[in-house]
Amino acid sequence: MILQIFPKKVDFFALFEKQAACAVEAARYFKATVTSGNIGETEVETIHAIEQRGDDAAHAIINQLNATFITPFDREDIHQLAIELDDICDMLYTIVSRLKVYKISGVNPNLVKFADVIEESVLAVEKAIKGMHDLKHLNAVAETCMEINRLENIGDAMRDDMLTDLFDNEKDFIAVIKWKEIYQEAETVLDICEDVAHLVQSLLLKQA
Amino acid sequence: MILQIFPKKVDFFALFEKQAACAVEAARYFKATVTSGNIGETEVETIHAIEQRGDDAAHAIINQLNATFITPFDREDIHQLAIELDDICDMLYTIVSRLKVYKISGVNPNLVKFADVIEESVLAVEKAIKGMHDLKHLNAVAETCMEINRLENIGDAMRDDMLTDLFDNEKDFIAVIKWKEIYQEAETVLDICEDVAHLVQSLLLKQA
Amino acid sequence: MILQIFPKKVDFFALFEKQAACAVEAARYFKATVTSGNIGETEVETIHAIEQRGDDAAHAIINQLNATFITPFDREDIHQLAIELDDICDMLYTIVSRLKVYKISGVNPNLVKFADVIEESVLAVEKAIKGMHDLKHLNAVAETCMEINRLENIGDAMRDDMLTDLFDNEKDFIAVIKWKEIYQEAETVLDICEDVAHLVQSLLLKQA
Repeated sequence: MILQIFPKKVDFFALFEKQAACAVEAARYFKATVTSGNIGETEVETIHAIEQRGDDAAHAIINQLNATFITPFDREDIHQLAIELDDICDMLYTIVSRLKVYKISGVNPNLVKFADVIEESVLAVEKAIKGMHDLKHLNAVAETCMEINRLENIGDAMRDDMLTDLFDNEKDFIAVIKWKEIYQEAETVLDICEDVAHLVQSLLLKQA
Repeated sequence: MILQIFPKKVDFFALFEKQAACAVEAARYFKATVTSGNIGETEVETIHAIEQRGDDAAHAIINQLNATFITPFDREDIHQLAIELDDICDMLYTIVSRLKVYKISGVNPNLVKFADVIEESVLAVEKAIKGMHDLKHLNAVAETCMEINRLENIGDAMRDDMLTDLFDNEKDFIAVIKWKEIYQEAETVLDICEDVAHLVQSLLLKQA
Repeated sequence: MILQIFPKKVDFFALFEKQAACAVEAARYFKATVTSGNIGETEVETIHAIEQRGDDAAHAIINQLNATFITPFDREDIHQLAIELDDICDMLYTIVSRLKVYKISGVNPNLVKFADVIEESVLAVEKAIKGMHDLKHLNAVAETCMEINRLENIGDAMRDDMLTDLFDNEKDFIAVIKWKEIYQEAETVLDICEDVAHLVQSLLLKQA
């Protein structure tokens, strides 16, 4: 038997999955972009368009929420999840936009490494969101959330190692300022994924 | 017929308008200050005093909220709006205070440009808040909110252009650090105005 | 007569006190660490362990909250207080971890000064949390919260003075970047304590 957490009429899950799909698309585009090392107007516009679609999905959730009097789980939690999923695309767009402003071209292997972990984490976020549909998947979702936490810890260590190397070896002060910001923002994407994982875990706990 | 969103007894609107008036005062003082190029103890104290009055208005709302058992629209939304309006003054005070710490004197035309857009956006915020009183103004408020979003996009582009120019042309590293922070904080004021606009739109949608 | 704010069965207070105790432990360890000037792997691991215990206490509160249908005061407030208390340990761990990444060794008297004020403020936070148990202590808690606000103002002025000095006198650009971040983060600890104080005051007001 499949237990439906939500009544069928209000399809919040389809909207959350739409948001998660945008986040995955943004993470993949981010990885392709930093791997190619070409960051110009086109790249910024492309990821901006993805971010806008994510925005639309978030607003659809919030509007649907406002139009629904009885919600089967806490309104603040639905609202919060929509905002946090939205933050993933926002931050990836911010980073690409910043790379263009800083006229950073060429491939930085550190950033490619970060893009790999970000893609992995965002894919896990999508998996967790998809698993929320029914309580049967409770254990699988919990494991996915633990995986997201693990990737955040890896990101923390990566950022610290990259900053150590940057401050030890980079002789160009302006490059230090630029990369310090980029590495910290890249790690923030993983922090946001972890926030999503915490929220998902807490939601499932309430329903259990 | 004018539909009252709130019962007359709890005058949250008068308090929100007080907060918005403080924000406008802060934005105007900010513009005057950066246009004159004189930033010293007096300027920091003046904008601090404005920010304190904004604080008092925010606390009055939160206390009134705690003393009111039945609220005609979501308590969290009232609370959130009070906090976001408060953030406008806070950030403007932070910038002026930072300009003094950094001993920045003289007029930076970029910052004057930002102050213009900030004043325009905060005036639109005040207009939106005033328009919330009755549902007749729903369309006008929606248009004002779209204007605030438009100004935020302008601010984003301005900050990116200014950062590009800064990193391309400023040879003094310390100046790069200082102005990078100031430009990003100036843009944050417009982000906060946009947050207010989103919240106002969502509130009106719920009441419609 | 002692008025119990909460029914005895749900011991949120014991958990909040556990969180506050972790914050005090972190503040004390932070002070000892920056006073000794030795920041290596051991120091980061020790404060990380304290932060993890604080995390566990926060999660226990949130889980207990989810399992309790009737709460004697607003669920969001309990949740928010748990998160803000958690932020104290998080930020102290972040600073120690950053000091290690930046290979900062030796004693910086400015940072010791900050660590003193932080310890004082976190002890006041613990006192305020302990005082929440019964309404008899209302005035004492209000005074403690005012003390926390006062310490935040001191921290603001300290940070501004330290930044002024840093930008005036430090000739090593990399050191400017590092210390600017550390001083701002140290002041953020006091901001978080002030957020806790505001929340505690607002909670007591609701109960009064």
